[in-house]
Amino acid sequence: MAIQPHYNRLAGRSLERIAALSDGVFAVAMTLMVLDLHVPSMAAVQSAADLARALLALAPRVLVYLMSFLTLGIFWLGQQTQLSNLSSSDRDLAWLQFAFLCAASVLPFTTALIAEFVTFRLALLVYWANILLLGAMLLASWRHARRAGLVPDDQAIAVACAIERRILVAQALYAAAAALCVISTWWSLGLILLVQLNYAIAPRLPWLRQL
Amino acid sequence: MAIQPHYNRLAGRSLERIAALSDGVFAVAMTLMVLDLHVPSMAAVQSAADLARALLALAPRVLVYLMSFLTLGIFWLGQQTQLSNLSSSDRDLAWLQFAFLCAASVLPFTTALIAEFVTFRLALLVYWANILLLGAMLLASWRHARRAGLVPDDQAIAVACAIERRILVAQALYAAAAALCVISTWWSLGLILLVQLNYAIAPRLPWLRQL
Amino acid sequence: MAIQPHYNRLAGRSLERIAALSDGVFAVAMTLMVLDLHVPSMAAVQSAADLARALLALAPRVLVYLMSFLTLGIFWLGQQTQLSNLSSSDRDLAWLQFAFLCAASVLPFTTALIAEFVTFRLALLVYWANILLLGAMLLASWRHARRAGLVPDDQAIAVACAIERRILVAQALYAAAAALCVISTWWSLGLILLVQLNYAIAPRLPWLRQL
Amino acid sequence: MAIQPHYNRLAGRSLERIAALSDGVFAVAMTLMVLDLHVPSMAAVQSAADLARALLALAPRVLVYLMSFLTLGIFWLGQQTQLSNLSSSDRDLAWLQFAFLCAASVLPFTTALIAEFVTFRLALLVYWANILLLGAMLLASWRHARRAGLVPDDQAIAVACAIERRILVAQALYAAAAALCVISTWWSLGLILLVQLNYAIAPRLPWLRQL
Repeated sequence: MAIQPHYNRLAGRSLERIAALSDGVFAVAMTLMVLDLHVPSMAAVQSAADLARALLALAPRVLVYLMSFLTLGIFWLGQQTQLSNLSSSDRDLAWLQFAFLCAASVLPFTTALIAEFVTFRLALLVYWANILLLGAMLLASWRHARRAGLVPDDQAIAVACAIERRILVAQALYAAAAALCVISTWWSLGLILLVQLNYAIAPRLPWLRQL
Repeated sequence: MAIQPHYNRLAGRSLERIAALSDGVFAVAMTLMVLDLHVPSMAAVQSAADLARALLALAPRVLVYLMSFLTLGIFWLGQQTQLSNLSSSDRDLAWLQFAFLCAASVLPFTTALIAEFVTFRLALLVYWANILLLGAMLLASWRHARRAGLVPDDQAIAVACAIERRILVAQALYAAAAALCVISTWWSLGLILLVQLNYAIAPRLPWLRQL
Repeated sequence: MAIQPHYNRLAGRSLERIAALSDGVFAVAMTLMVLDLHVPSMAAVQSAADLARALLALAPRVLVYLMSFLTLGIFWLGQQTQLSNLSSSDRDLAWLQFAFLCAASVLPFTTALIAEFVTFRLALLVYWANILLLGAMLLASWRHARRAGLVPDDQAIAVACAIERRILVAQALYAAAAALCVISTWWSLGLILLVQLNYAIAPRLPWLRQL
Repeated sequence: MAIQPHYNRLAGRSLERIAALSDGVFAVAMTLMVLDLHVPSMAAVQSAADLARALLALAPRVLVYLMSFLTLGIFWLGQQTQLSNLSSSDRDLAWLQFAFLCAASVLPFTTALIAEFVTFRLALLVYWANILLLGAMLLASWRHARRAGLVPDDQAIAVACAIERRILVAQALYAAAAALCVISTWWSLGLILLVQLNYAIAPRLPWLRQL
């Protein structure tokens, strides 16, 4: 009886398939947002000036799109880095990754919410909760991987520190930004965007690389 | 003439491509549901209380989304476990997997149906039929794989038992849950959710691991 | 100058990426159709009988969905078989495959068209033209692959015959079915469905295997 | 301290995952456009002539679809060629590729815009800006790859020249086409289409291969 392989130990072994599923979810999430950009209706556009005005009116949606893309890019990179440091997977890791993907697929919604209701603290907190959830799931999945022996020994210590520090510093900055909403949601949002841009373009600026 | 390779024997050989197609279908199904979450319209929201109320009104849809995600996660894991135990594929297996994918892609619809009409037995039976179909296709595909020699010999017996037992126990529990609808559809739905949560988080609870 | 690698010879080499792109296109096409299945509105459903009626009214759309899925499955298998018999790719093959994917992504539209206007010969011809295009692109891509030396020599002859015969026989049957529309579009559609079912489940029936 | 692996050096290493994400984004973008093709409503179609007229009315949208598909095909091939010539990735390359994907996912929108407002210079310039952005990101990503040592030495010089010349010549032609809009946007659009068709079918025509 004890020799029988147990289902839970068989399941969720394939890192490649988790990666492929993630790439699919991120790709769809990245592309679906474009559906919110509607070409101005011909009836409303009589002149070149009308068209310019109609396109300008789309600007906020384009900005939301870019912001979503930026955040999805940051977390896709974070997950990719993590998975590429694992030697195998297990069922628990798969479920933690599912939770991560679930949070990622909701991001276009929460980004649209904050874009629409930028002056409301509740919208900002929902948006921040989404980012927090993404970070928490990445961290939980990494901690589980270390505990379960899915990280090859020889890189366990140094890489683990780099990855965990990165997530914790980023989430601390996001939390500080969210806390600023007691002053103004604009300050919060501005700081969140700044942190995100930092993670996207920091490698260009040596003095920011330490974050 | 007999030496000519036959098309049906050439077709559907690639396990990797079946896996990739499945990851795509699951990724799209997992992400499409988010399209049902609409940001409250600005016109309807005057105050922070309005926004809180509007977001609360979205709660049932969020719940449906999480339920769909949970079920898709369970069956994605089930399929991934199965495919990772096969050494090759054939045309029949490909078609059984297509039927499985077809059932998976309909799941967001049946989940939305049960969420909307939770007190109707018919909605519950449709939802259960979908889960039954997913399980039946997984089982049929596994049985075919064993009969057709697609499972490497050395693991055929032990793994096969674990996989088949898993599917049969799960489907028996789902069927029992569905049968409860003669008392109340709420009991049915509650038990189905419990069984699903069991498969998602059971590994944490040793005494549930035997299921 | 002549030593410089030419861009066109560098491009489109990766069979794996063509396969991955195809799996994505097929996965999205297979799943998008489900968006056409709308849960009946609560307002219209007062009793269990209402719900049964509302679900029955969805039956044609479900049928269309299954038909699309069947056709996409057939051509996905056809393409997968073909690609798995190639040793490399080139730019021309990539463009022939793009044309194939383009035809595949339009299929949900033409299937919906024939489902809505089943008595119109024009709808049937559009649907048939789509199937013809899929077959023609598969054949063109295979012929190009042979001419360009992308098929490993040792299997070139026997496999090539099997693949080409398969496509030609299938397309001849489809053309015959389409021609029946001078009698009745129902006859056409019935025969097309029969041919498709044949390719999906034929392996089970020995006497049909020769087709 | 200096021995600790730095997060930015760990991140974004996997070329395979960037390729998989790209295939997902391109596949969704290629397929989403079909959603804009709506089957004519039954109420509006009484006769075969009505149906023919309704389908003809869809022709512009079908053309837009084909144009989008063509452009996406060209840039997918361009990116695939580039990635297949790299030996590894890094974080900066990942972000340049994200920007490329962002531009690719917006293409269906800008193509629809130019299709709707073909006589407006602004629409043409937006469309051209999108193509320019795609080319610029490809070039930036290639230049970065060379500078960062991601291109294996032995092919660096010859391949690099071929790839860069290709992008620069194409973009020069596109820019010239866009400049023609001072005469007429039709001339611009026609020349852009001609350039695109050249890149899609040029390999067939020896005297165009040098471009």
